[in-house]
Amino acid sequence: MTAQTPPMGWNSWDCFGAAVNEEQVKANADYIAENLREYGWEYVVVDIQWYQPFADSHEYQPFSELVMDAFGRLIPAPNRFPSSANNTGFKKLAKYVHDRGLKFGIHIMRGMPRMAAHKDLKIKDSDFTAKQVADPNSICFWNPDMYGLKCESNEAGARAYYDSIFKMYASWGVDFVKVDDIAREYPRCRKEIELIHDAVKNCGRDIVLSLSPGPAPIAQAEHLKANANMWRITDDFWDKWELLLDMFKRAEEWCTHAGPGHWPDADMLPVGALRQDYNPDDRTRFTKDEQITMMSLWCMMRSPLMVGAHLPKNDEFTLKLLTNKEILDIEKTTHCAHQLYRTDSEIAWIAPSKNAKTVYVALFNISDKKRKLVFDLSSADLSGYADAKELWTGKKVPVLDDKVSVQINAHGAAVFRFDC
Amino acid sequence: MTAQTPPMGWNSWDCFGAAVNEEQVKANADYIAENLREYGWEYVVVDIQWYQPFADSHEYQPFSELVMDAFGRLIPAPNRFPSSANNTGFKKLAKYVHDRGLKFGIHIMRGMPRMAAHKDLKIKDSDFTAKQVADPNSICFWNPDMYGLKCESNEAGARAYYDSIFKMYASWGVDFVKVDDIAREYPRCRKEIELIHDAVKNCGRDIVLSLSPGPAPIAQAEHLKANANMWRITDDFWDKWELLLDMFKRAEEWCTHAGPGHWPDADMLPVGALRQDYNPDDRTRFTKDEQITMMSLWCMMRSPLMVGAHLPKNDEFTLKLLTNKEILDIEKTTHCAHQLYRTDSEIAWIAPSKNAKTVYVALFNISDKKRKLVFDLSSADLSGYADAKELWTGKKVPVLDDKVSVQINAHGAAVFRFDC
Amino acid sequence: MTAQTPPMGWNSWDCFGAAVNEEQVKANADYIAENLREYGWEYVVVDIQWYQPFADSHEYQPFSELVMDAFGRLIPAPNRFPSSANNTGFKKLAKYVHDRGLKFGIHIMRGMPRMAAHKDLKIKDSDFTAKQVADPNSICFWNPDMYGLKCESNEAGARAYYDSIFKMYASWGVDFVKVDDIAREYPRCRKEIELIHDAVKNCGRDIVLSLSPGPAPIAQAEHLKANANMWRITDDFWDKWELLLDMFKRAEEWCTHAGPGHWPDADMLPVGALRQDYNPDDRTRFTKDEQITMMSLWCMMRSPLMVGAHLPKNDEFTLKLLTNKEILDIEKTTHCAHQLYRTDSEIAWIAPSKNAKTVYVALFNISDKKRKLVFDLSSADLSGYADAKELWTGKKVPVLDDKVSVQINAHGAAVFRFDC
Amino acid sequence: MTAQTPPMGWNSWDCFGAAVNEEQVKANADYIAENLREYGWEYVVVDIQWYQPFADSHEYQPFSELVMDAFGRLIPAPNRFPSSANNTGFKKLAKYVHDRGLKFGIHIMRGMPRMAAHKDLKIKDSDFTAKQVADPNSICFWNPDMYGLKCESNEAGARAYYDSIFKMYASWGVDFVKVDDIAREYPRCRKEIELIHDAVKNCGRDIVLSLSPGPAPIAQAEHLKANANMWRITDDFWDKWELLLDMFKRAEEWCTHAGPGHWPDADMLPVGALRQDYNPDDRTRFTKDEQITMMSLWCMMRSPLMVGAHLPKNDEFTLKLLTNKEILDIEKTTHCAHQLYRTDSEIAWIAPSKNAKTVYVALFNISDKKRKLVFDLSSADLSGYADAKELWTGKKVPVLDDKVSVQINAHGAAVFRFDC
Repeated sequence: MTAQTPPMGWNSWDCFGAAVNEEQVKANADYIAENLREYGWEYVVVDIQWYQPFADSHEYQPFSELVMDAFGRLIPAPNRFPSSANNTGFKKLAKYVHDRGLKFGIHIMRGMPRMAAHKDLKIKDSDFTAKQVADPNSICFWNPDMYGLKCESNEAGARAYYDSIFKMYASWGVDFVKVDDIAREYPRCRKEIELIHDAVKNCGRDIVLSLSPGPAPIAQAEHLKANANMWRITDDFWDKWELLLDMFKRAEEWCTHAGPGHWPDADMLPVGALRQDYNPDDRTRFTKDEQITMMSLWCMMRSPLMVGAHLPKNDEFTLKLLTNKEILDIEKTTHCAHQLYRTDSEIAWIAPSKNAKTVYVALFNISDKKRKLVFDLSSADLSGYADAKELWTGKKVPVLDDKVSVQINAHGAAVFRFDC
Repeated sequence: MTAQTPPMGWNSWDCFGAAVNEEQVKANADYIAENLREYGWEYVVVDIQWYQPFADSHEYQPFSELVMDAFGRLIPAPNRFPSSANNTGFKKLAKYVHDRGLKFGIHIMRGMPRMAAHKDLKIKDSDFTAKQVADPNSICFWNPDMYGLKCESNEAGARAYYDSIFKMYASWGVDFVKVDDIAREYPRCRKEIELIHDAVKNCGRDIVLSLSPGPAPIAQAEHLKANANMWRITDDFWDKWELLLDMFKRAEEWCTHAGPGHWPDADMLPVGALRQDYNPDDRTRFTKDEQITMMSLWCMMRSPLMVGAHLPKNDEFTLKLLTNKEILDIEKTTHCAHQLYRTDSEIAWIAPSKNAKTVYVALFNISDKKRKLVFDLSSADLSGYADAKELWTGKKVPVLDDKVSVQINAHGAAVFRFDC
Repeated sequence: MTAQTPPMGWNSWDCFGAAVNEEQVKANADYIAENLREYGWEYVVVDIQWYQPFADSHEYQPFSELVMDAFGRLIPAPNRFPSSANNTGFKKLAKYVHDRGLKFGIHIMRGMPRMAAHKDLKIKDSDFTAKQVADPNSICFWNPDMYGLKCESNEAGARAYYDSIFKMYASWGVDFVKVDDIAREYPRCRKEIELIHDAVKNCGRDIVLSLSPGPAPIAQAEHLKANANMWRITDDFWDKWELLLDMFKRAEEWCTHAGPGHWPDADMLPVGALRQDYNPDDRTRFTKDEQITMMSLWCMMRSPLMVGAHLPKNDEFTLKLLTNKEILDIEKTTHCAHQLYRTDSEIAWIAPSKNAKTVYVALFNISDKKRKLVFDLSSADLSGYADAKELWTGKKVPVLDDKVSVQINAHGAAVFRFDC
Repeated sequence: MTAQTPPMGWNSWDCFGAAVNEEQVKANADYIAENLREYGWEYVVVDIQWYQPFADSHEYQPFSELVMDAFGRLIPAPNRFPSSANNTGFKKLAKYVHDRGLKFGIHIMRGMPRMAAHKDLKIKDSDFTAKQVADPNSICFWNPDMYGLKCESNEAGARAYYDSIFKMYASWGVDFVKVDDIAREYPRCRKEIELIHDAVKNCGRDIVLSLSPGPAPIAQAEHLKANANMWRITDDFWDKWELLLDMFKRAEEWCTHAGPGHWPDADMLPVGALRQDYNPDDRTRFTKDEQITMMSLWCMMRSPLMVGAHLPKNDEFTLKLLTNKEILDIEKTTHCAHQLYRTDSEIAWIAPSKNAKTVYVALFNISDKKRKLVFDLSSADLSGYADAKELWTGKKVPVLDDKVSVQINAHGAAVFRFDC
């Protein structure tokens, strides 16, 4: 089964928008193989519009001609992905990634290209044509490329199209597909999610299915768990404190739904070098403390981790942030994590490990100044520990009178591991 | 100023759907000229998709090729409107109608044809192209033909397109344009309504502007009054008692907003021969009493009157229904009409005339059986009249003890005129 | 039938709060008889807590001992209403008012005094006791005196109590009862309203039934018309421009429901000397223009008129405001009034007269500066008049090109009468 | 600190309503001491209206005279609690309970008796009188006895009253107070909850504070955790499958908020002999399977356990249900419990133990027929166990292919303990 633990990897959106090219993907894959792979980072994901020859930033250009095959299936724009020449799609790029011990992923929009419908192309291995399958009323409100499919009124046709694209992705060697314009589109896209889930199952290759954008509705938790491996719980996340603070509420809401094969997703980590399409000097606006808070929360809640940085430009802090083995262990060894309490100035989370006498407690200083935070072990049924290890500093902290204390900077965090 | 009294005419939708052709339009124009014109009926309106060569019913066919000129302006499908050959548009058909002392109208969808945008056609008399003006995210949810325009982000371009089509309509001799997918689309289409209003004003011809579909939001009453001559107050109205009963509530809500140049519109009158595209024997499912109720309410509230019948198939009842001069007078001579009261079984409306000592009172039996309705004149400040005339029967009715009484069939109506 | 035209009179609340006494009531009755009666003002209404010996302002004092008889019926506090001594209730005060050609009214809260229930008093002319009839869960949220009655679960008992108090009021000579804590309490008080309506009908005397406080729900218009003579359409109205401006919206909403016997009520007129319990020098904070706007709107919409001033302190402006016969005529002679249009800076209302060729149009300048307002007669179906009379200035105004123009001060109004 | 684990005990409401008497309380205390104490059951709670001499069922009688002292504090009705004679309150009954190694609890309504306010009694150890402290507008909508206090406008007075009653309860030896008409009354009762919390803290005795009725709002979780030891998450729970099924949703919602000192409360357990005031033969309408489901869910979610039965009438099944030590251990040894998944026919919960390698998984068959349920350990990160113990049958169940299977009756449950 795929995604037994939360998927970890890199995604091109935060640093290159819709304009990423083959060379950039390779450079990041190389970096991961050398620096991050041993810590569990493995997916290399090409985000939106790899089929759009003219994409040059995070903006979309309506009514552009997208590259597609005779069956209305989008294929890489050869000017941006030269290895895709001769109708080989992403086969060669996937191999490049696989050769480095990593996995290869792509982003797609639900539906088919609008022009495939207007041209009424044939759907591969079926008697349907695009006109019969595309729904002229089902569009995406932030991207102009596609029509959704008639999943209810022509289920067989919609299924044929989704099968046709996932079989192609499998033949390319794709390991991860992020489907967009779908996770928050309940009830309208409920059936479309099911057809895509079926297409993944039938494509002949293990593929992690990721749904975007959020917020996915909490009332659909069981449907999402049954049909996808991860799904976004917020709209696009960026390097702003307000968005990070807001994530605590969503993490609390979703925490009981994380488990093997199904992971609520807090979105990419906007660290390091970002938005390179606009400004090659741009870097995350998060403070170091905020980045520590983000990593701590994502790990405690067991969110998938997809780093958004242009990795070769990582500084030392960023690299350390992404390679704290003891923090990353939380993702792999715990279950049943949840928020313990929240006040105006602090938040506490607990995550027990599955099979050993270890418990993690994270303390977050959400106030705007440095504060001393005190955690009372007895308030969480944890009496009896003699000391704890704080995992960002690596220091032992004594338990006095059933309490641990720690100074935390504004917007910062501490993560304690209690072992017995 | 246009539409000083509520516009009256014929519309092709109820009887022919999207499939009406030139011959049918002419046949109805002929009928109106001979039988209805003297009673005030004058507009002959060709409804939706006159530019779609393959339309054959009330259903729309997605991704069909629409007939348009080099500037992305829809023109009549010549297979359906032969007189439009040689790029003359509706010029000859309009002349045919004008020659009979009538006025000519058409239906359009807001926006431009989707394919005009994908082909990026030039916009007439401007430096804009379709790609710059069409909004890929602004579609209609029940018709697949068009993209709305970027009225906010490219106002000049959107204005150029709307000006270009209304100038063409003016050149054809169009007197009435019903714009669809717009009246209930507040706030999204607010600006689009204003640009269309401006295009009407600037096109060089008096054109009545009608907005569909409803329900238009009552909170936008003043905006609608400032920008259109009539606007729908319900979704499509058909020959079902529930819809007719429902109209009383909407009529009550909107009644104070009717006045010269601006008319809340209760939609077409589904009487006589309807849905001829499906079944040439189909006729209205309304009982005669229900049709009398409908005409009485539409006149009392001063709704525009657009008959939906294939007129040449009118029976005697239908013709009489449409030619009761004294009932139609209410449309032209009253103001300040409103509902007086409503119980579970009856409703009363009052409409005073503008310049004379005449008052109309309509009584509606909304129960499912024949009942005697009694109207107490004193309850409406009308004491003092000696008698009344009931306008559907033409009979005098005495006022006894300040009251008039009348037997009314289930779902039927009586309309009294009190003169002094 | 009562209240054939909107009731007009005086109410003690705005000037004396809960603390009004006999002398003050008489002084105002005297003033009305001498100065206002000939203009239609006739009701003299004693507002809330005439049974509370310690009332001294607009504030309520919880858990005070209220004066009541052995049957749990509140009677006037003799220290405040000496003429009520010897168990004569308001008989003598009513006579004083009647002797001046006026009518006498009182205010009551729905329900019975809380202490009547706790003491379990007998209910007059019935086998019920207070305990059986009072509903311990039905209280008023702004006044501590009463329990509502069990109108559903003990209808007979509740009916007996309401009959017992209205029979007493009839025996006193009461002509008008304002029942409070009830008009906006739908659906909870629906049945209570019906029982009070029945008690009025059965009490043996013509009594106008007025329901407070507002806003009564518009969805209950027909129930209100069937059960009361007037009902408040707002919460308490005071001398603030925001409240006056807000009234236009409510007036528009309710205008079609005004008619003989049933009047939407815009609340008392806070003019002249007000809040005398706090400060004998206090006067209305409305500008003169605002007072003209208020009177114009109240008359156009045919609201009841209840003046809140301590009348003997009227200045010349206030007296003139209340005695403009031509303005007051609108209340008695029109019907079918409604708002014509509203912009950010002006509002227009129309009111046709019932039986003659006269129409009133009021123009309101709701902006914060003096402006010229132009009214286009053709926009309201009124073409053809040669001139108009402005009723606050008494001046003729010519109609030029189908238009009348007038300079109006900030927050002011003009009212035109068009005669043919 | 009180309530380190979820409180367990007996409450008089389900079996005796408002009418319980001293003898009945003692009989149940005796039974607990002999049969249940060793399993952790310890609180003996006298529910509502022990101060009402005439209470005879689950119904309330409005306007009855309640027994109170000179300071407006309710004291036991001596006809029902003879040991309270001579102003000793519950002192002797508490001692009786304490002598059996148990703890004593009472129920109160927030606020003070209505008549204390109307009589304006003095408040003990303060300069306030009842009139100043009672809020005439703050009543309970299902019980007629009390007025809430002016916690905002006279905080000192309200505090004085609550201090005065809790000091009395402490002097009686009360260990547990269930305050009613308060837990779902946010935001209105927010401050009242805080004052009661303070009164508990200041009364000089460890008292568990329990708030009713539910549903308490989830948005107030942190306020509840800070101010009370337990609070109801539903309205009154009774022996109906629909209510039990509904509890799963609420349990899921609240599960992350259970912890030492603060427990979401799923309400009393309606098992055994119930509603004895109406019918001495009445017993729970739950099937045995439903009772097992209820006990399993309450323990997994760590709800307080308050049995509603008249215990001396327990049959063997009921006694066994309440004395399954291994099931009750879940309440004391786990943390971080939550729902794993839910389908139309089944629900799974997980609860890891705090300090050992033990995990509990409960499977619930919510369908209406017997079914085989299969639990895949890998889906919950639990791979590696060789077998499990089912705690209701006491049987070992093998783990085959990472799965356990079990036949469960309609509405029944199984609880597995996995040990390593």
